Parts: sequence; C-alpha cells; structure tokens
Amino acid sequence: MNEVCSDELCVGCECEKIEQMIRHAFWSSGMEKIVIGLSGGIDSSLAAVLCSRAVGSVNVLGYLLPSSVTPEADMDDVKALCDKFEISYLVVPITGILEEYESIPGYTESPYLKGNLMARIRMTTLYYFANQQNALVCGTSNKSEYYLGYSTKHGDDAADIQPLLHLLKKEVYILAGYLEVPDSIINKTPSAGLYPGQSDEEEIGFSYEEIDKALENLISNGFKPENETEAEILKKVEKASHKRCAPPNLLKEN
Amino acid sequence: MNEVCSDELCVGCECEKIEQMIRHAFWSSGMEKIVIGLSGGIDSSLAAVLCSRAVGSVNVLGYLLPSSVTPEADMDDVKALCDKFEISYLVVPITGILEEYESIPGYTESPYLKGNLMARIRMTTLYYFANQQNALVCGTSNKSEYYLGYSTKHGDDAADIQPLLHLLKKEVYILAGYLEVPDSIINKTPSAGLYPGQSDEEEIGFSYEEIDKALENLISNGFKPENETEAEILKKVEKASHKRCAPPNLLKEN
Repeated sequence: MNEVCSDELCVGCECEKIEQMIRHAFWSSGMEKIVIGLSGGIDSSLAAVLCSRAVGSVNVLGYLLPSSVTPEADMDDVKALCDKFEISYLVVPITGILEEYESIPGYTESPYLKGNLMARIRMTTLYYFANQQNALVCGTSNKSEYYLGYSTKHGDDAADIQPLLHLLKKEVYILAGYLEVPDSIINKTPSAGLYPGQSDEEEIGFSYEEIDKALENLISNGFKPENETEAEILKKVEKASHKRCAPPNLLKEN
Repeated sequence: MNEVCSDELCVGCECEKIEQMIRHAFWSSGMEKIVIGLSGGIDSSLAAVLCSRAVGSVNVLGYLLPSSVTPEADMDDVKALCDKFEISYLVVPITGILEEYESIPGYTESPYLKGNLMARIRMTTLYYFANQQNALVCGTSNKSEYYLGYSTKHGDDAADIQPLLHLLKKEVYILAGYLEVPDSIINKTPSAGLYPGQSDEEEIGFSYEEIDKALENLISNGFKPENETEAEILKKVEKASHKRCAPPNLLKEN
C-alpha cells in the first residue's frame, strides 16, 4: 500500500492482498479454524475482520480475555464488532489465573511485571484454545509496534500468522475505516489495556503520527536519523532488536 | 564440534565457544542475571552449567517448576546439580496455576493439550522472574528437538539465548559428560516430563541415535532422504517448519 494512500480502490487491493496471505497460510497449514484474541482495540478488530473475509467468519473464533481492569466499554465494542461481522466469541476472564500467579513464592508487583504477565497469560489461554480447536492463532501486531518493540515477547507478539505486520498504525486506521470497523473502536484512544487509563502514546512518549513519520523516514534512509525525534525512535528500535531476531545461538556455524 | 568428536580437547574448545557466546549475549544485553528452568534433565542441566561457567554461578538463577506429575527423583537431581555447581534455585510449583486453567469455560483435557499448557505456564513463570530480576532467559533446546519440532511453540522453545541449539542430542551427552553433570542426570531416560512415564523416544517413535543419524544425513544431503527412517524424520522436520520460521506476514513486501 502506498504510504499515505487512502484511495478506495488501492485500500481494497491491500485488503485483498492480506486476505490472500491469510487464506494461503490457513489452507496450507491443514488447520480447521483461526483463533484471535479480541481486546476491543483497532488492531485486533481489523485483524478479525480480515480473517473473516479471508476464510469465512464461521472459521474464526474470537476470545475476549478480560482482567479486572478491562473497561466495560471494550467488552461492548467486542460484542458490537462480532455481531456486525457474525464472528463467534467466548469470554474467558483471566482474573483467577492472574491471582494464582500472584500467590507464587517470590511474587512482587509492578505495572511492568504485571502487564507482561497478563500478556503471556492471554497468549497461553489463546494457544490452549487454538490447540483444542485445531486452529491457527492470528496475531495483531502492526509495523509501528513491531519496530518499537511495543509488545510483550512471547505474549501478544506470539502468533502463527501476522496479517498487520507490514502496516503502520495510520494504515491500520485506513483499512479499519474502509472495512467499516465500528466507529467506537476506531475513535478510542489506543491502549494496551494492561492498567486503567493506559495510553500507548503516553507510555511510548510520542504520538503515533510522530512514530509513523519517524519510522518511514528511518526505513527509507537506512536507519540514519535526521532529527531528534528520529534519533529517539531509533534508540527504541535498536533496544527492541531482541524481539525481532532469533535468540543468539551457534546453529548456523555448524 | 566434529560430529562424532569425543576428544577431550575438542570438547573443551566447544564448551569455550558456547561460553563465549553466552558471555557476549549476556554482557551486550545489559541484563544482570540469567534465569533457567531446571527439569532435572540433561539439556537444562548442561545449559545451566555452561551459563555458570560463562558468567559465574552467582549470576545464574535456576527455577524448578514442578507439577503434580514431576518425579521426586528429578527434584533430587536438580538439587544435586545446583549443590555441585553452586547455582541458586527456587522451587515454584505450577499446580495451582494449572488448576486455575482447568476451571476456565470450555476447558477440555488431553495429554497434548495439557502438555502444551504446562510448557507455556512454565515459560510465563520463567519470564515473570526474568523480568523481575532483570535477567535473560536461557533456553535448553538442542538441534535434534529443534529440527523435529519436539517442543511447545512459545513454551519450552521460548528463550533469549539458545546455547545448545547447534548440538545434536548425542553431542549434549558428550558435553554433559565432559563437564561432569551428575551421572543420575546423564543416565536417566530422556523425557519432556509432561505426564507420568513419558519418554521422548517412545513419543517420537525413534531412538535419539536414529534421529541424530538421520538428521546428520539429511542436513549433509540437502534434505534428500536416502532410506525409510530418513523419509519419516524428514516428514516431521517439514511439519515443524512453522516452529522454526517467522509467522507468515507481508512485512518484507513493503
């Protein structure tokens, strides 16, 4: 997709390209379903709609995995999305599992520790159902998050297909608008939903507009920063390289 | 390491090469510790000893994460290993967490589902402590398991460093013997420990001797099987390719 493209035909082609990728991965895997964790946010909503279009909504199973800090509004948004696109979904609260982790020897708490723990509990739950249903897990990471490393390793970044990985956050918005994802989802403040009032942009320290602009420039310039924002974004990209690369090993030397 | 090498000097060089890799990954990561899950099996025991030699046992934290099916003998072996190599370790039973998963809506049970679930609970627990201690997670996958896909995706295969990934199972034994891992660990039947009496070789359907021989031939022949065993092993290698590759995505097309 052209980086600032909002032309309808072009957006339609981009959706078709993604749907073909999903369809190919699904049919060649021999799996019977696609499972996806639904947060009520724009990324998981768009990914679910693309999966439905690619393989039929009857083959897509949504899982809403709320914690005690999940806003009621997000649960309503998941319901509205699934009703509109005829996607079945199951609500599986992770509260009891989280409390069990809180009782292990040596447990201490911080937003960082708890956020990563919740993301990994959700991954484990989602893969449990994927294994049970003979299903692929659809990931919801976008290109902006991927480069910044704004995700939990082996948590929300763990999946069997990643249909949004080539889309900057602004492109996620364009596709979501084109596919008529409900406005309440498109208009809400982006949040990882790991603690009350969390905002992606506040936590990262830049708006997605700044992030996307900096990433586009960095990628086209061979990662040579040309201003202070790009230099700071580059630091985050470099710090997160362990999330994008295979873990250090000696396999290739053999 | 030469594939059939058991010459002492050569094995010593191989250990040094692995330790250098661990040391480099550790110091360049800015992390303060290495955490490792200890099962009482040969792979995690060897990896723990190599980490201790690489960065000092004071920087290595072992975690024994038993379930209700973990044999007492494995717990004794972890204790013997850690006593011998002066590695601190914490015992964190996963029983309560597993029971909590067993009560989620839609839960059903099979050895496959429960085994994968346990491996992912262990990963989540290990990463919880790694995040808490500002530590890297050391993986324990060897080359035989890696090619066969004999592991749980985002479970026991999830780690920040993989020091054994280039070693066939037979080479793991050679290094473990050289580094004087306790005999009770070296001599036990290899098992993923996910249900009572589980044996890797029974579950895979081939002995490690057959697997290693077939893998060596396949790798040196460009994965062209030359007998029935190699053909069957190759099928397993191909079926597990999704565990070794990045999930399908369109990032590189941009």
